[in-house]
Amino acid sequence: MNFASDNTSGVPQQVLEALARANDGYAMGYGNDALSHRVQDLVRDLFEAPTAQVRLVGTGTAANALALALLCPPWGAAYCHAAAHVDCDECGAPEFFTGGGKLVLVPGAHGRITPERLDAVLTRAGRSVHQVQPSALSLSNLTEAGTVYDPDMLAALTAVARSHGLAVHLDGARFANALAATGATPAEASWKAGVDVLCLGGTKNGLIGAEAVVIFDRDRATEFDLRRKRAGHLFSKHRYLAAQMMAWLEDGLWLDLAGRANSAATRMAEGLSNLPGVRLRHPVDGNVIFVDWPGAVAKLLRARGATFYDAPREDGTPGARLVASWDTDTEQITRFLALAKDATSP
Amino acid sequence: MNFASDNTSGVPQQVLEALARANDGYAMGYGNDALSHRVQDLVRDLFEAPTAQVRLVGTGTAANALALALLCPPWGAAYCHAAAHVDCDECGAPEFFTGGGKLVLVPGAHGRITPERLDAVLTRAGRSVHQVQPSALSLSNLTEAGTVYDPDMLAALTAVARSHGLAVHLDGARFANALAATGATPAEASWKAGVDVLCLGGTKNGLIGAEAVVIFDRDRATEFDLRRKRAGHLFSKHRYLAAQMMAWLEDGLWLDLAGRANSAATRMAEGLSNLPGVRLRHPVDGNVIFVDWPGAVAKLLRARGATFYDAPREDGTPGARLVASWDTDTEQITRFLALAKDATSP
Amino acid sequence: MNFASDNTSGVPQQVLEALARANDGYAMGYGNDALSHRVQDLVRDLFEAPTAQVRLVGTGTAANALALALLCPPWGAAYCHAAAHVDCDECGAPEFFTGGGKLVLVPGAHGRITPERLDAVLTRAGRSVHQVQPSALSLSNLTEAGTVYDPDMLAALTAVARSHGLAVHLDGARFANALAATGATPAEASWKAGVDVLCLGGTKNGLIGAEAVVIFDRDRATEFDLRRKRAGHLFSKHRYLAAQMMAWLEDGLWLDLAGRANSAATRMAEGLSNLPGVRLRHPVDGNVIFVDWPGAVAKLLRARGATFYDAPREDGTPGARLVASWDTDTEQITRFLALAKDATSP
Amino acid sequence: MNFASDNTSGVPQQVLEALARANDGYAMGYGNDALSHRVQDLVRDLFEAPTAQVRLVGTGTAANALALALLCPPWGAAYCHAAAHVDCDECGAPEFFTGGGKLVLVPGAHGRITPERLDAVLTRAGRSVHQVQPSALSLSNLTEAGTVYDPDMLAALTAVARSHGLAVHLDGARFANALAATGATPAEASWKAGVDVLCLGGTKNGLIGAEAVVIFDRDRATEFDLRRKRAGHLFSKHRYLAAQMMAWLEDGLWLDLAGRANSAATRMAEGLSNLPGVRLRHPVDGNVIFVDWPGAVAKLLRARGATFYDAPREDGTPGARLVASWDTDTEQITRFLALAKDATSP
Repeated sequence: MNFASDNTSGVPQQVLEALARANDGYAMGYGNDALSHRVQDLVRDLFEAPTAQVRLVGTGTAANALALALLCPPWGAAYCHAAAHVDCDECGAPEFFTGGGKLVLVPGAHGRITPERLDAVLTRAGRSVHQVQPSALSLSNLTEAGTVYDPDMLAALTAVARSHGLAVHLDGARFANALAATGATPAEASWKAGVDVLCLGGTKNGLIGAEAVVIFDRDRATEFDLRRKRAGHLFSKHRYLAAQMMAWLEDGLWLDLAGRANSAATRMAEGLSNLPGVRLRHPVDGNVIFVDWPGAVAKLLRARGATFYDAPREDGTPGARLVASWDTDTEQITRFLALAKDATSP
Repeated sequence: MNFASDNTSGVPQQVLEALARANDGYAMGYGNDALSHRVQDLVRDLFEAPTAQVRLVGTGTAANALALALLCPPWGAAYCHAAAHVDCDECGAPEFFTGGGKLVLVPGAHGRITPERLDAVLTRAGRSVHQVQPSALSLSNLTEAGTVYDPDMLAALTAVARSHGLAVHLDGARFANALAATGATPAEASWKAGVDVLCLGGTKNGLIGAEAVVIFDRDRATEFDLRRKRAGHLFSKHRYLAAQMMAWLEDGLWLDLAGRANSAATRMAEGLSNLPGVRLRHPVDGNVIFVDWPGAVAKLLRARGATFYDAPREDGTPGARLVASWDTDTEQITRFLALAKDATSP
Repeated sequence: MNFASDNTSGVPQQVLEALARANDGYAMGYGNDALSHRVQDLVRDLFEAPTAQVRLVGTGTAANALALALLCPPWGAAYCHAAAHVDCDECGAPEFFTGGGKLVLVPGAHGRITPERLDAVLTRAGRSVHQVQPSALSLSNLTEAGTVYDPDMLAALTAVARSHGLAVHLDGARFANALAATGATPAEASWKAGVDVLCLGGTKNGLIGAEAVVIFDRDRATEFDLRRKRAGHLFSKHRYLAAQMMAWLEDGLWLDLAGRANSAATRMAEGLSNLPGVRLRHPVDGNVIFVDWPGAVAKLLRARGATFYDAPREDGTPGARLVASWDTDTEQITRFLALAKDATSP
Repeated sequence: MNFASDNTSGVPQQVLEALARANDGYAMGYGNDALSHRVQDLVRDLFEAPTAQVRLVGTGTAANALALALLCPPWGAAYCHAAAHVDCDECGAPEFFTGGGKLVLVPGAHGRITPERLDAVLTRAGRSVHQVQPSALSLSNLTEAGTVYDPDMLAALTAVARSHGLAVHLDGARFANALAATGATPAEASWKAGVDVLCLGGTKNGLIGAEAVVIFDRDRATEFDLRRKRAGHLFSKHRYLAAQMMAWLEDGLWLDLAGRANSAATRMAEGLSNLPGVRLRHPVDGNVIFVDWPGAVAKLLRARGATFYDAPREDGTPGARLVASWDTDTEQITRFLALAKDATSP
């Protein structure tokens, strides 16, 4: 019962098989192989974006930081939610990759920024030479709170950003979960909603380590390529990144895996919400659950073999984050909910 | 017949099998899993360095740049050979990771720096506030010319570096090939010869994408960890990096693969050196061959299916680089040498 | 009637005379002249800090950013008030100089951080490899709101910082005003209260462009010197910086000038506070006044020749910032208050 | 007798008087004052460049590094002479300001790069994603060897640069000396010869600390402004920079001062070249002299009160650099040459 993160899971058999197939023979390095070209074409098809540029990297932090660096100069500001992964969990990678850009934090309930608040913040922002220049909006979908933006919400936010001259980055570490949650098409949840650069995360949803950066404005791709190499994120044996990504995107595997994770989380959340003293902190739109519960419950569950992270509120109220994965099965859920019932019964 | 680079080869079966084994069950992320701990222990054993800190990353550029950033401050200079990979082929990664440190180029025959030249350069280097401060020596073994430093050569160079207050980085993208070439033990070719941080490359010698940074001074490891995360090089599903590295280091596979590549190169070099109009530019100590030959030879060989990079001399004299790999087999060598014989016969 | 900033004023005659005296003859560059040595000794005396290292630069932004870079690594966080000059008015200089460090904003009434809030924020701060590492506290005295920290307040804040492992930077762009306001000695308001590096600002209080960075921990000075040169802030004709600073510190001129500015502000504030519809937003401890008043008042005052900046509240309520300077004289104050009276009379 | 540098001299009376005049009354900060506007207009007139953007900073290192950062991205290379000040004497400022760009060193006799050599180097430069991208040419006039490029030489070099896609920076720390030496107009020695950004140095030629960056392509100016502020090089009391620069440029003072320094150097060089065992290392085109002479000569001269820096050749042969200044007078020259005659007489 490991709910610490969706990155504690392994990968489905298809991914390993794809690696074995890709292993055959010689292949030119650095993305100059047939498989790497094919994966770019596939992403373009899936996103209905024939001119999009697609680049693969090995980690989500790399994808986000490289993407932000495209959109935010050293003297720029990128606006993101106060709990955004790029601010809280990447050890300053955006600042490193942008060359010292600033993340400006925008608060908002349930991990979401509202267009009104964003507009107010941007309207107030100074733009003289003394201030960093508002340059990018960075959204996450799923959000860090496990909630989802549907395409309309995204479009409203990106419209505000656009009206203030900002470009838009979308941290899609759980983009597949967002698609599964909303039923939106890849295009609807990205460029059609005003996203300029999407970081499409595979690692949290069944890959070994592969993320696709989808650059809808092709003119930015050359700079990306130089930044990627310079940051050590251009893999020489690129075919193995491509193989993972192909296996994941082909035949809808990515959406299938995300759907499974979301369903598992929904069932866990329903079960938990019925227990005394347990409250869901945020709507559970995808595969991430935040609960408020007594510290003793967490202790008991851990003693009986459940793994997860504590996630107290800012005021110290105890709580936890539980993440379901593509391989969270019925047995695990049943067992966990039974333990949770025990742990919360008076 | 692909001799473009040792990174155009696939990986041996053991590596794929190790991935499959590692795929079983849940594992905590970011290196906090059993396999990741085991690989650190194994490296320590192999290097007779019980307190060394071992960190894995996915690319050689990342390994080198992170290592250099440990040893060279933003206002520092790292001294390297004029043809060093860190200067010529990493798109400024060392400058990016160090925060603007400077690489100072030291010329030398056959890809090697001599202690005398290094001493002269360092003696002349200014150390006032107006100059960048001499901080690190960066060596490569194999060198970019395909030659090797034996432990005595290394020790002589690191002694000069030490006497001027510099720390020592070793780019070991082909460290296994250097060991196979010299018969030195891992310890003899690293810390016993004065190396502070070794980048032990697996990717060019049979791995998908895994490099170990071996930090002999454990006090530097915490900074490395922050730099690695911040650069997006801390893999969440770290077990798959560890699995590759384990499979490679266990049972001497790494040395076996390197030995095969070196032998293949030796045979190719011998064959080539007997052909009219073909000259080996550098001693072939490992798996990399530089030849001077007429441009027409290269053209003919390519027309018949051989893949390799041109490598003209500085003055424009034509030539090529040919790299043998762990899977360069007798059949390829025989076929290539036959073609070369044809191409060079009057 | 210019109340836009204390940097719109000229400099007292003594400063010009000191430049003229310093102009005589040759002097070695880059601080290696007698006058530059003397100013360091004088600062040490005034601060009762015989081992402090004193460095001069030309702007407050340079002083602050260089000082922060000493205390906060690229992967570090510096905590400052949400309205701090280093965050709001330096176009990201701290991020540039630290190499991508992060400023974490701490709210607080009247421009001040409270020890309780600081402790809460630091207690909650993550310190794993995924987070930037809490490294420095950056205080301003006077604060951006024009209020003062007395030595006890400072000591309480720096004690919290110290207990969490943070070093302390003090932005003293108006340090002299803070001394004049509190009667504290230079030592009491700096190192005795736990400050590690003080930026002692001269420019806003009667100099052409000279700030002293006082580094109480001498071991940090060599790094400062390299950072200063590398940032283009080491003046070759350093004697002219030194001459300004000497003239200012000798015979208590700096405190005299600050006292005059504070007195002027006090009189202006008293006058304004008695007018209908005008409210002082913050206590006026030094030479900076924030008023809430109807926009029409500002308009009228400007029409009659007063210069100042609007400073609306976050919610848009109109208001202004008025800064008195060392040369704000009785005539100006009287005239301004008369105009203000007119402008606010029904 | 101080020949250590032209920055050991004071400033002419006109400069002090200009400061005193500028001191009168209030002036808005950060360049928004009348004098700052006037100096920009004057530079445009003098350079026959009505759309040029002119910015002032306090040091030559700042001017150069900011200018280079405009022309060379973090992944770019700037080509400069192997002895260039930007590489040898600015503690890595270009690397800091560009965000990690690389300086590529081009050798050349007497401090000059030749068009042929530049073309060869640029033709050979890799431009794949693995290499830093050739972006800028950085020239110095006077060169570090004290020689001059005349407009034709400049034009030939910038034509090569342009043909390879590079922009051109000119380090004009001694630009006035170059004008005095060649008789070229400011325009002929800058934009008419293909220079994109000129750093026009005042400090070495009679100012306290003021340099003008002349940006001939006005579109780059906004980025410059943000970079300047962010680097702490935007002076709040900007009028005092402007006053210095006005006094210097008005009525030809700058050229007059440079002419005096050049004449003094010419006379010193002539005198020295006639002494036994003394040889001029480079042509003395401006105010900088390099001599080869026995170490004993240097010792004797110092013992008798002459100040200068040793400047041995790369191979250790002793020598010195002697710099004449605007205020190097006949008496000093005569005295120095007499001492030198004594010191070199057998």
